[in-house]
Amino acid sequence: MKLKIAVLPGDGIGPEIMEQGVAVMDAVASKFGHEVTYKEALCGAHAIDELGDPFPEETYEVCRDADAVLFAAVGDPKFDNDPTAKVRPEQGLLAMRKKLGLFANIRPVQTFKCLVHKSPLKADLVDGADFVCIRELTGGMYFGEKYQDNDKAYDTNYYTRPEVERILKVGFEYARRRNRHLTVVDKANVLASSRLWRQIAKEMEPQYPDVDVDYMFVDNASMRMIAEPKFFDVMVTENTFGDILTDEGSCISGSMGLLPSASTGESTPVFEPVHGSWPQAKGQNIANPLAQILSVAMMLEHFDLKDEGALIRRAVDASLDNNVRTPEIQVEGGAAYGTKEVGAWIVDYIRKA
Amino acid sequence: MKLKIAVLPGDGIGPEIMEQGVAVMDAVASKFGHEVTYKEALCGAHAIDELGDPFPEETYEVCRDADAVLFAAVGDPKFDNDPTAKVRPEQGLLAMRKKLGLFANIRPVQTFKCLVHKSPLKADLVDGADFVCIRELTGGMYFGEKYQDNDKAYDTNYYTRPEVERILKVGFEYARRRNRHLTVVDKANVLASSRLWRQIAKEMEPQYPDVDVDYMFVDNASMRMIAEPKFFDVMVTENTFGDILTDEGSCISGSMGLLPSASTGESTPVFEPVHGSWPQAKGQNIANPLAQILSVAMMLEHFDLKDEGALIRRAVDASLDNNVRTPEIQVEGGAAYGTKEVGAWIVDYIRKA
Ligand SMILES: CC(C)[C@H](C(=O)O)[C@@H](O)C(=O)O
Ligand SMILES: CC(C)[C@H](C(=O)O)[C@@H](O)C(=O)O
Repeated sequence: MKLKIAVLPGDGIGPEIMEQGVAVMDAVASKFGHEVTYKEALCGAHAIDELGDPFPEETYEVCRDADAVLFAAVGDPKFDNDPTAKVRPEQGLLAMRKKLGLFANIRPVQTFKCLVHKSPLKADLVDGADFVCIRELTGGMYFGEKYQDNDKAYDTNYYTRPEVERILKVGFEYARRRNRHLTVVDKANVLASSRLWRQIAKEMEPQYPDVDVDYMFVDNASMRMIAEPKFFDVMVTENTFGDILTDEGSCISGSMGLLPSASTGESTPVFEPVHGSWPQAKGQNIANPLAQILSVAMMLEHFDLKDEGALIRRAVDASLDNNVRTPEIQVEGGAAYGTKEVGAWIVDYIRKA
Repeated sequence: MKLKIAVLPGDGIGPEIMEQGVAVMDAVASKFGHEVTYKEALCGAHAIDELGDPFPEETYEVCRDADAVLFAAVGDPKFDNDPTAKVRPEQGLLAMRKKLGLFANIRPVQTFKCLVHKSPLKADLVDGADFVCIRELTGGMYFGEKYQDNDKAYDTNYYTRPEVERILKVGFEYARRRNRHLTVVDKANVLASSRLWRQIAKEMEPQYPDVDVDYMFVDNASMRMIAEPKFFDVMVTENTFGDILTDEGSCISGSMGLLPSASTGESTPVFEPVHGSWPQAKGQNIANPLAQILSVAMMLEHFDLKDEGALIRRAVDASLDNNVRTPEIQVEGGAAYGTKEVGAWIVDYIRKA
């Protein structure tokens, strides 16, 4: 297969983990005989500094012309605590989502047995939890009409039928490929937009007779996710609720630094770690590259390259089992590996496999 | 002191726990020489059945003319899974909030040492957690302009300066009475309404130089609350975020059945358990009356009757220490007490104190 990948390392630890992601991609490509080309582009704080725009037009073009985008992370402390700054790295994220039509954000919440003790939850609750949060990513309050002056402000949580249908479809289809249990999260007892979501979901149900659907209010979902994470298989929800719930989901896994995500939609799909740019760790070779590496696996699986994805997952599991781990997940007394060393170990495993 | 209390037992287990709340109130009143009168009124599913309205006008009048409302819980399964039903018990809650101007929902998240093991979180994270969530309750998407047809829908997250100022004031003042740490939760990197909140909070900061303020995005807050609940002292946020975060907060305490709440504002304040109406347990004498009883304590403290409130809290602690507990929190092998028996024990403790 030929793959054209847009590479967006972004800020902070982004470039370091991206280097390992690309190395792993290369190893897999040469093993399976795929032809991969990369094109790097600027985004985030970096892009603001150099071009005054966190998602410049040329970056957009690189993404649009690629088969997939491999993204690391954006964000820089100099923009923190100033949500009113004119140009901010987050705007780059939002622009990328909108321009590439990335309406479906897919976040598998997986636990790794050897890291379950890192979870804030009790081990028995979280061990074996394995679900997927699907968040609508280009609608709702994020993109609805807004207004602010000194005395009042509003945001509009606006959804149209086609927007709701296409994301629910992603939810139903994901559920079908997994354990056929879909939880639609909304606040239909209060919000008109949620009532539309629920109505459409109910209309779609008959097309997926093999999928069990339940409806859950968002306040309940935020509790259930910690009280009984194993309840969930696939959860689908709107943008703002999804922002809150996907982060809550990642946090309970104990494996936040290992979780990849995908954002798919109308144009090129984007694959990226769930974690942020961790600017404090920049250049120290201590950041965990596994979420980035597993984002490569998700990307390959997206193109139906299942064996390739599975090999990366096996390599990651093996690295964990062999205590080839970055400091934050190293076992007591174990020698911590650097970002590069973990990446190199995994590349080596893939080559020898 | 003379106190006129509106009593709204509502649905499900409501009447049973209310009976104990009132008995405790009576015991405290006679001990301290207060003169309390009660007036009961209908609300919830009950009120729909009898009067076609979950918060009838006569109930409103009873509340308006009282010094405080003691509320239990509303909700009935026959209204579940049908968020589009014309009249629903929740509408009664929303009507009560709006008509009584209950703009501040105050939810202390407290852990009880003997119940920490009930938390989904690891004991060391949650033991000693003690914070207050303050949720704006009469604005935002709950009450903003809404629209829905077959093809589109929207809700409006609208806030005005006075609405934001008065709830932030509650937050600042609560922080001042506690550990002087206020966390303002918003999504100011995306939402215009959040930017107004943050702007106003920053303007108010100088009036409270003794309070440490930090600003946290809602997605972060939902993680921090489980990763490090002891970080928080007082948290203040808008209606929808507050709906999600207050429930998450209650869930982590392990003491959900024991948590009271207050809703205060322009008119009569309301005191009620955080938990729901648990219709399945109705009439079985198994519901835990402690959240209702602690709601009475919160009510007394609201009227600055500190010794009275403290006595109730001591009585509750003593009941727990003596394993006088309803089934869901009874220790293994311990005899479970009924709703009535727990209430009677506490009344007895207060009488003898
Ligand atoms: C940075 C911010 C705009 C973004 C969001 O809220 O979508 C982030 O929190 C995320 O979840 O990807
Ligand atoms: C029943 C519902 C309308 C209500 C709300 O969302 O406010 C409830 O969840 C609550 O938090 O009191």
